[in-house]
Amino acid sequence: MSTTGRMPSPEIIFDTLFAYQKSAALKAAIDLNLFTAIDEGAHTAPAIASRISVSERGARILCDYLTVNRLLAKTDDGYQLVAEASAFLSKRSPAYLGSIANFLLRPELKNNFENLIEAVRRGGVGPNDTDIVSNENPVWVEFARSMMPMMIPAAQAIAEQFTAVEPIKVLDIAAGHGAFGIALARRNPNAEIVAVDWKAVLGLAEAHAKDAGVLDRYRTIAGDAFNVEYGSGYDIVLVTNFLHHFDAATNTSMLKKVYAALKPGGRVAVLEFVPNPDRVSPPMPAAFSLTMLAETAGGDAFTFAELREQLENVGFRDVEAHGLPTPQTLLIARK
Amino acid sequence: MSTTGRMPSPEIIFDTLFAYQKSAALKAAIDLNLFTAIDEGAHTAPAIASRISVSERGARILCDYLTVNRLLAKTDDGYQLVAEASAFLSKRSPAYLGSIANFLLRPELKNNFENLIEAVRRGGVGPNDTDIVSNENPVWVEFARSMMPMMIPAAQAIAEQFTAVEPIKVLDIAAGHGAFGIALARRNPNAEIVAVDWKAVLGLAEAHAKDAGVLDRYRTIAGDAFNVEYGSGYDIVLVTNFLHHFDAATNTSMLKKVYAALKPGGRVAVLEFVPNPDRVSPPMPAAFSLTMLAETAGGDAFTFAELREQLENVGFRDVEAHGLPTPQTLLIARK
Repeated sequence: MSTTGRMPSPEIIFDTLFAYQKSAALKAAIDLNLFTAIDEGAHTAPAIASRISVSERGARILCDYLTVNRLLAKTDDGYQLVAEASAFLSKRSPAYLGSIANFLLRPELKNNFENLIEAVRRGGVGPNDTDIVSNENPVWVEFARSMMPMMIPAAQAIAEQFTAVEPIKVLDIAAGHGAFGIALARRNPNAEIVAVDWKAVLGLAEAHAKDAGVLDRYRTIAGDAFNVEYGSGYDIVLVTNFLHHFDAATNTSMLKKVYAALKPGGRVAVLEFVPNPDRVSPPMPAAFSLTMLAETAGGDAFTFAELREQLENVGFRDVEAHGLPTPQTLLIARK
Repeated sequence: MSTTGRMPSPEIIFDTLFAYQKSAALKAAIDLNLFTAIDEGAHTAPAIASRISVSERGARILCDYLTVNRLLAKTDDGYQLVAEASAFLSKRSPAYLGSIANFLLRPELKNNFENLIEAVRRGGVGPNDTDIVSNENPVWVEFARSMMPMMIPAAQAIAEQFTAVEPIKVLDIAAGHGAFGIALARRNPNAEIVAVDWKAVLGLAEAHAKDAGVLDRYRTIAGDAFNVEYGSGYDIVLVTNFLHHFDAATNTSMLKKVYAALKPGGRVAVLEFVPNPDRVSPPMPAAFSLTMLAETAGGDAFTFAELREQLENVGFRDVEAHGLPTPQTLLIARK
């Protein structure tokens, strides 16, 4: 023990061991539409309790807890939404993303953390846990259903990188909700999108393409992104939130297929959580590495240098990183 | 949605939904003796992995994650303990309290948060969950086994409030690990302690009393604190970490028994998480209310005014609050 005079407080330890309660409290509040109720004018515990059909005591304690955790504010006029809650947790907001809790707290994903010690020992998901990238895992339907709102800002930012209006062919790997390809299709009326994902997921991507009015330019290829035939002659291939699930060797073999599918001069767009070289900043991309340790066999939050190496290994050049208005990073490279 | 110009970041929402991973990561690190390994000189992922028998990849990712969460620091010389980890998470430290994770993350306690929405609806622990204050719940043996190190500073601070050296009789209600009564017995060689708790718990309290050399002045009463006979003529009754498990009416009926057991002029010492009147500060006592919502039928983190009322209702007077070097508050009142 390296003492330095005054005894520190164990509060951070207590707070960290109790942190699981924060996830549970926010999930409960989202599922109860508590933030929407406050946005609609219920500001006291009795008013909130009445509107969302819970006990007054439950409403009071949950709202106080959310206030402690800076998701609400408490004033003389009662509970108020903080800016983030107003923007993202009230269903009255067009940017509502409460649905992400359904994916992020899926039992399959959460339960792997019960055996985290085993994942640390093995260096990847434990033998009795669920590898989330296993075949046709239903979490990806939930992902497609729930995570789209979280990805809209990144999808729009990516679309802005591709300003062409001439006819282009875009391959959207592991398209999920489809937001990335759809954003490109909306920006360029002459873009044709080919979306790859499991069959059950593609139904949702197609529904979103229909909602966006681009279904006539939207094709799908059902199956495992590692095994299906992509076709060729693509101008752009989107590889979003994909590489972090696999180790570098697996990514290299997969990027080889992407490279082959592109026309000369075509570009790959990779969206990732990219920590700094120190791997401990910024907080969100750096922390994401633990999720991959617990949920996959070899996935990681790769640094820019690692991703560049994976891309250059298969022949890509001019690898560039673009900051986004989200905690993720966009890499673009050219064939 | 009340917009205020610039769009806020959803990072706090993402971070809160993923907060459960912080608890799991710290628990895994404690169970693997990772902090002790670093304290003993392992500072790189390979060195740590080798010392605690885990994969290098697992050690690297877990250490980076703990660094993001300020439980480690990462320098050019590798991973280092922060002051709190050095004081409380290395087994080389006399103030080691890693054992508290065994209680705080007991499945019985944690699982209730899976159904938090039901507790919010009902205003207390759900019908399919475990009320932690139910009869002979084994969590209290775990509590007695694990939580003593966390309570030592408070126990010492309480003992300092009672400076008498003449013979006194002390009743320690729900004694648990016994730390509070034992601290008084050590301070006053003429103090006799009577500890009340479930039989399985008292075995541990007695073992601790023996370790402290006070077993000859240590008696026990096994059973439910609400039903057993306390005896009478006590100078001091300790009611530590007890009242938060019950509603005000239950506490009042229990404090009546305490009052009756004291001699005139005797004092009750109540240790509690006491939030400010706003109920949202300080963070730790305020947040504790949610734990009681999820784990008990009617428990709460009571404010000073509420606790004073519970005490005065049965006849106590001169209710005083004493700040402690921990996030809890000591209340002392006189018969």
